[in-house]
Amino acid sequence: MTKYVVAPDSFKESMTAKEVCDAMERGIKQANPAVEVVKVPMADGGEGTVDSLVDATNGQRVTVEVTGPLGNKISAYYGILGNGTTAVIEMAKASGLEIVEKKKRNPMITTTFGTGELIRGALDHDVKEIIIGLGGSSTNDGGSGMAQALGAKLLDQNNHQISFGGGNLDKLDRIDISNLDSRLQDVKIILASDITNPLIGKDGASRVFGPQKGATPEMVEKLENNLQHYAKIIKRNLNKDVASVSGAGAAGGLGAGLMAFTTCEMRRGVDLAIEVTKLEEKIRDADYVFTGEGGTDFQTKFGKTPYGVAKLGKKYHKPVISLAGYLGEGIDSLYGEGFTAIFGIIPGACDLSTALKNGPSNVARTTENIVRLLKF
Amino acid sequence: MTKYVVAPDSFKESMTAKEVCDAMERGIKQANPAVEVVKVPMADGGEGTVDSLVDATNGQRVTVEVTGPLGNKISAYYGILGNGTTAVIEMAKASGLEIVEKKKRNPMITTTFGTGELIRGALDHDVKEIIIGLGGSSTNDGGSGMAQALGAKLLDQNNHQISFGGGNLDKLDRIDISNLDSRLQDVKIILASDITNPLIGKDGASRVFGPQKGATPEMVEKLENNLQHYAKIIKRNLNKDVASVSGAGAAGGLGAGLMAFTTCEMRRGVDLAIEVTKLEEKIRDADYVFTGEGGTDFQTKFGKTPYGVAKLGKKYHKPVISLAGYLGEGIDSLYGEGFTAIFGIIPGACDLSTALKNGPSNVARTTENIVRLLKF
Repeated sequence: MTKYVVAPDSFKESMTAKEVCDAMERGIKQANPAVEVVKVPMADGGEGTVDSLVDATNGQRVTVEVTGPLGNKISAYYGILGNGTTAVIEMAKASGLEIVEKKKRNPMITTTFGTGELIRGALDHDVKEIIIGLGGSSTNDGGSGMAQALGAKLLDQNNHQISFGGGNLDKLDRIDISNLDSRLQDVKIILASDITNPLIGKDGASRVFGPQKGATPEMVEKLENNLQHYAKIIKRNLNKDVASVSGAGAAGGLGAGLMAFTTCEMRRGVDLAIEVTKLEEKIRDADYVFTGEGGTDFQTKFGKTPYGVAKLGKKYHKPVISLAGYLGEGIDSLYGEGFTAIFGIIPGACDLSTALKNGPSNVARTTENIVRLLKF
Repeated sequence: MTKYVVAPDSFKESMTAKEVCDAMERGIKQANPAVEVVKVPMADGGEGTVDSLVDATNGQRVTVEVTGPLGNKISAYYGILGNGTTAVIEMAKASGLEIVEKKKRNPMITTTFGTGELIRGALDHDVKEIIIGLGGSSTNDGGSGMAQALGAKLLDQNNHQISFGGGNLDKLDRIDISNLDSRLQDVKIILASDITNPLIGKDGASRVFGPQKGATPEMVEKLENNLQHYAKIIKRNLNKDVASVSGAGAAGGLGAGLMAFTTCEMRRGVDLAIEVTKLEEKIRDADYVFTGEGGTDFQTKFGKTPYGVAKLGKKYHKPVISLAGYLGEGIDSLYGEGFTAIFGIIPGACDLSTALKNGPSNVARTTENIVRLLKF
């Protein structure tokens, strides 16, 4: 029986990866009911990572109350994968930019404390492994809030915990980890991120990502200086040098914080998703592979989900068809990377909100027509 | 060598059929240079028919000065096909709606005189056959202006020629064809049209098409009564009953006028184009067929160009891939008619003018990706 593997990312603001999978399956079955469709919702460490990995492994979601980026209580969830021993967290669910009103975005005060609470929640499940997606943060606190939530004391000269936010890190005098959650020593923490920026400097978290989180030029300089100071204290008290490590600048320096306070490794989001979902063996047995993402352009080859899928297709000489709501510049450069064909899904000139709303039917229709062609 | 036949209609307001052919060829060659591409620009009797048939047969265009819909002189062209013995005319080039400013559109006064002049021009070439595309008219004069241009006298009670326009047909007292261009007897006239409306009545030219040419409800009634009178005089003087014949209502009754003053037959536009371009034998030898049109929906199966192409594809069991700038409701209903797959070409949400402007690159990109898939 002909076997289709569908392994799309989410289409941002339109569909989760699972919804894309469902639409692709609908299209395939419409064209050819007598085939097998293997649905593998993918992720890149950003928004939708928990949903995709939970859905792909038949895991479960756990909702908890945590501290939001601005200190107020919010509801957030993490996932326990189907194996029961791996948790998956998105920092953005607790500390993300999307959950902060535009006019309130301010990385001087936003905290990763809630992300720390999600990690604590995951530890309560006795998991062996915690995957943490680092995409979409609202913060620039170097993961200091996360560390506090897990029991670390970040003290000022008066022996008081410093306040939340990257703007207060200059008050940090010393770090005391004697109360740090000891269960952290027994889990493997895997950071899912495509970011390779260091914590500080011209490519650092503050200068590169600060402005898009609401920082003014003056704030950026303050945040940069504060993270330099933070790195110095970490070096002094924890004996770890996180300032220039690749990826330390991810999620406003949460990368650095996790490197400082836990033992972790960093993986490209899509590679991790491929591993968790066992995508490679599924593609090895496939006749056709579908993937996709909200927008595809030359940047897709810098490690986006469809690129990871296409590479596997190339390895096993399978045709990989990629769909997108938007095709930008330079998709030609993807053909050499395993992308057999790339199609837009929009049926005609329309505004963005219509395009986003009709994502499922557009994916289904496009997929159906491709499969009609393939089976001719 | 793999052979692709590309036989699209024009994409209205974006590309001529030839431009679509060129874009499809570019896409195919980009994906697979080692194939043969046979370009067959198609037409349906509407706008672009002259260009398509001239281009498809390596014919020539002849530009002449004619009387426009409002009586002013304009430049228009007709075509002589590659065989040298067939002329092709679009009534819209001399008497079309598009060449009349919106606020000046008024079927009470617009005339088909210029179309008669184009026919006269064609007769000067000693052709054996004249194809007349009836789409896109601004007129509702029953072809009376056309007849006058060819020498017929349409006289009022004072033996004066009546004035231009459907609004003056009530003054017609009798028709004198003693000076009608005698060369008309030696040519076969073929009307290219998909319209089956009669001249008069509730499905007649005035009531169905009058409003879109600028007629108010009062004008519509006047025009209807005038065409009834016109048909009566034709019956009395020329002994032809054109009132209820299928297609007589095409082009504001120009269909009826041509039936009254010439010997003609009416053909579906796409069927004629298929015949002129010898499309059937080209598809018989093809491996893949591409077609397309500006917008595709359930109405496409009512005789639009891609439908005619798809029917041939079905007959010879060839895959037919159709592209469109806009996909509307009910394209599912086309799959049974020979359409193997139907794709939109738009790369993402955008406004109409952007979509129209980028037609060629969008067709080329989509074609390229389809061919990449086909050759995998």
